[in-house]
Order: sequence, then structure tokens, then C-alpha cells
Amino acid sequence: VLLMITVLSGGVGAARLLRALSGVVPPHELTAVINVGDDLVMHGLTICPDLDTITYTLAGINDDVRGWGLAGESWRVLDELRALGGDAWFSLGDKDLATHLYRSQRLARGATKSDVTQELADRLGVSVRLLPVSNDPIATQLHTASRWLSFQEYFVQERHSVVVDDVRYDGLSAARPAPGVLDALREASRIVIAPSNPILSVAPVIGVAGVREILAARRDDVVAISPLIGGAALKGPADRLLRELGHEVSAVGVLSCYEGLVGRYIIDDADASLAESVRAQGVHCDVTTTIMSNPEHAAALARAVVA
Amino acid sequence: VLLMITVLSGGVGAARLLRALSGVVPPHELTAVINVGDDLVMHGLTICPDLDTITYTLAGINDDVRGWGLAGESWRVLDELRALGGDAWFSLGDKDLATHLYRSQRLARGATKSDVTQELADRLGVSVRLLPVSNDPIATQLHTASRWLSFQEYFVQERHSVVVDDVRYDGLSAARPAPGVLDALREASRIVIAPSNPILSVAPVIGVAGVREILAARRDDVVAISPLIGGAALKGPADRLLRELGHEVSAVGVLSCYEGLVGRYIIDDADASLAESVRAQGVHCDVTTTIMSNPEHAAALARAVVA
Repeated sequence: VLLMITVLSGGVGAARLLRALSGVVPPHELTAVINVGDDLVMHGLTICPDLDTITYTLAGINDDVRGWGLAGESWRVLDELRALGGDAWFSLGDKDLATHLYRSQRLARGATKSDVTQELADRLGVSVRLLPVSNDPIATQLHTASRWLSFQEYFVQERHSVVVDDVRYDGLSAARPAPGVLDALREASRIVIAPSNPILSVAPVIGVAGVREILAARRDDVVAISPLIGGAALKGPADRLLRELGHEVSAVGVLSCYEGLVGRYIIDDADASLAESVRAQGVHCDVTTTIMSNPEHAAALARAVVA
Repeated sequence: VLLMITVLSGGVGAARLLRALSGVVPPHELTAVINVGDDLVMHGLTICPDLDTITYTLAGINDDVRGWGLAGESWRVLDELRALGGDAWFSLGDKDLATHLYRSQRLARGATKSDVTQELADRLGVSVRLLPVSNDPIATQLHTASRWLSFQEYFVQERHSVVVDDVRYDGLSAARPAPGVLDALREASRIVIAPSNPILSVAPVIGVAGVREILAARRDDVVAISPLIGGAALKGPADRLLRELGHEVSAVGVLSCYEGLVGRYIIDDADASLAESVRAQGVHCDVTTTIMSNPEHAAALARAVVA
């Protein structure tokens, strides 16, 4: 009997969880439904950071030390672009660029993001099933004191160090789920919400038509993992954003973003004192090490998810 | 008194002539009006081979041995793209890619090809004035036995080794001259038709609204240089195309493509026997070395053009 696990996924945290899960269950029993709200078109190229991070990580060609991009990367094109006076704030490595050229050419020829994702996964030997949540454009936008920023302007150009007072998801209400997404959620024996940013990564996945309804109906089969440890994000602006947008800055605050959608919640040992508060909301709570700082810890977390 | 020379330009042959001319007249007295009919959009990038060849050559950063692209080029991205199964028949070097990323981003932000050409020329220290003939799309298409090919499909993918029975220039009849083009032709003391392919490079320049009329009205100030030497093209398919499309395959055949537009014609020593035939058409004829195989020969040709 196949277990069939479907993981709602952002970028790095989800990629690491998927890698760990693929060590404890057969990879072909795993499906990732992946955020596209931080996709961008730059220099004419369609760039899908979360899809690529997950693909590269599962292919074992990512740079684990730097935390993003490809191992053995070089920066010849970007250096030249900078010398020409071009926009060089979004780091595009030479090997990574090949992915964006490939995708952009295929999209121009009529392929969908789903098609391209599958082609790249096949070429790179990834057997986890990777699904963009939608083939329609979704663009997460963050409002600061003075203006709306695209996700990458906020995250990369501003190094997520500006105060955000509003978030919107352009295109989300009209975005249709990509082929296979709703079935992967309906047919999974377990649905996992990865330890990704609840506002920037998970919300634009849950907001695609049909996703929230399936989660709510299957709540007992949904397990979420807190991306906050002791009230802080390991990396990225999840803690800041929760505060700035009026949420409680804790694992419990993250859970409130998923109200009514989660049957089991995995929090870190550092947050053991929050377990009662989680359970008081009618949600099972497991306490374990959630930091995937080495393969053993990652495997332990994966086993807790599968348990 | 400024001489002001305007050169109708294709790619490599025109680039070499412009480089030679800029050694015998001040570069800022030179304007190149450049073909865009072989521009393409590939991998999401807008690529302008003739504009880039001329810019790189005048900046002194072209690869003179290979005959195209940049010196010291590397192919990291293309190698990766090939490994991913992408379209890799159009060689894009890493340094060259930076140009295409720069242009594509600027165009997406509302700049014109004229703007981008000027920006790149400024950045690379080119003081010859470079003008795309039009900012509107022009696409040279070649018909073979079975189908229409884009210029680059014909030239690069098929290595111009297929029989062509028709040529068309999509967009040409609606294309407006780019800013400065008609004035550069009206105000030049001399107009030069570079030794470029008359069908593939020069025709889509002359065909832009207003250009032909100015040439016809200023015929005595127009000097053309034959790209054929002893009936053969030094490089490229000019001779084959002339034959396949029913022209005489000679310097005289090329001149017939410019009927009524040229007052003086420069042909190679190897074609001295054709001089009488040229003169019989009421066109002055100079016979000299037209092969720009070394700087001395190129300078001699440039002096003959300026004389």
C-alpha cells in the first residue's frame, strides 16, 4: 500500500523536508505542490525560485552551504551584466541561467510551468512529483511605507529589512490549480504543510481555488510543521512579517494562519511549552527537533511527519 | 567641416568597414544604420546579431579569428542548457548573454532598441553613432522547398546550406525608421552601402519607409561596395542566394539590387573586367582591394570610400 504524501511547499525549508522525506518513504510516493507567488520575469526570463530550489535540492545539485542556487556555480554572465550597467541585484549564476533559458523558451513555445517542471525533474533525475500550484500568474506583493514591492524586490533587493504593513497576492483569486494538484491533495493519505513562511510561501498555495476546501475537509490528515523555533525564524523574515502584520510571533501564531486546516502540528523542542496551547485548539501536537541541521535530525523530523 | 558618413550596415562586413572608416575619419562623424531583420527572440531574450557584431567590433572586444561574438568568450550557460535538453543550436556565449539580458530587461521596461544600442555603445566606449534602422519588428524569412525559416534558422541552424526560393521581410512595410535614421541619411555628405549581403542585410534596411527615397534622391552621394569577389562571397550565402533567387552572381548582380540608388560602386581588383559594365549603367566605378584581410587593406578600402 502506497503512503502517498503531498507537501504544500515554499522554497528552502520545504526542499529540505522533501529531501528528508524521500529518505524515509519511496520518492515516487511524494508530491510537492509548490508556491509560484515569488516567480518573476527578469531580463526576459521566467524565473521560478521555489520550483528551482526544490528541484535542485532533490537532484542533489544545490549549494547546501550557501543555502540557495547550485553547487559549483559561476557568475560570468552576472559579472558582465553588472559591467554593462544592468540590473544585477538578483543573483543569477551561469548554471542556474540555463534553467531559466530552458523554461523561458519552452513557455514561449506553449508549454506550461507544469510541463517544464516535469521536464527538468526528469532530466535531473528527480522522482518526487513536483507540481507548481498553478500555471496562472500569481505575484506576491508587499507594501512598505512608500510602495508595493514584488516578492523578490522585498526579499533580495531590500534583503527583507523593510517594514511591511500589507501583503497581497495578485492573480491568486483567479488562479486555477495546475493539473494534478487537487487530485494530489484528495488522494494523499497525508497532507503536509512544510515549515515554510506561512504568509509568503504557504498562503499563496492554500489560496488557489479548491486547496483550502480540501484541507478543511481533510483536516485530520493534515500535518503542519512550525517554521519558527523559540519565536524566531531560522532564516528569512517569517518572524518579522508575523509581527508587522499583527500575528503572534510564535509557533502558535503560525498555526493561527492555518486555522481549521490542520489536525496535527509539529513544533520544536524549544517550544514544548506551547504544546498545551496547541492542543487546546483541538490540534494534536508533537514536539521534536525540527531543525534539519544534519541528516539525522532531518530524518527524525521526516519520521515524525510520516508516523 | 565635418564629413559625416552614414553607412547602411549588415553584420560582419559592415562592422569591419566601419572599424576601418573610423581609422580614417573621426568616429563621431560616422553613423551606422543597422539591419534588424535577423533579430530574434530566443529563450525569452531579444537578440540583435548585427547591432551586437558592430558594437563589439567597434569596441574592440569582438573575436576577429572566429568572426563572430566576443573575444575570451566562455560557454558555461550553453553547455548547461544543452545538458538540460534545451535548444542550443544558436551559440550564446556567457559574456554575450549579458548583452541580451541587459537589452531584454531594458526593452521590458519600455526602452527602445535605439535607446539600448546607445546605452551599450556608451558603456563600451563606441563613439560611432549606431542606429537600428527601425524600432519596429522586422523579420527576414526564407522559404525553402518545405517551409519558411527565420533568418537564424536558415543561417545558423541550417548553416545556410538549404535551397531558398523566396525571401520575405515580415513587418518591413509597416516599420517606421528609428529616430535619427532619415536625418542621418539626409544630412550625411556621403552615404555608404556596406559590403553586406544585398538580400539579407541591405534590403531590409533600404525597405524601411523613407530610406529608398532618400537614396534615390541623393544617388550621386551614395557609394556601394561589392560583397562579391570574383563572383563569390568571402563568407556567408550571398552568392548562393543571388543564384537561387535569379540574380546574376557577380558584383554587377549585386549592383542590380541597388538599381537607381548608387552613384559610385567599388569593386575588387579581381572583378576589374566588370568595371565597364558598371559604368555603362551610369555608375562611377572604382577598382581596388576590397578584402579587409588586414588593417592596411581595410584602411585602403576606407580611404577609397572617403575619397
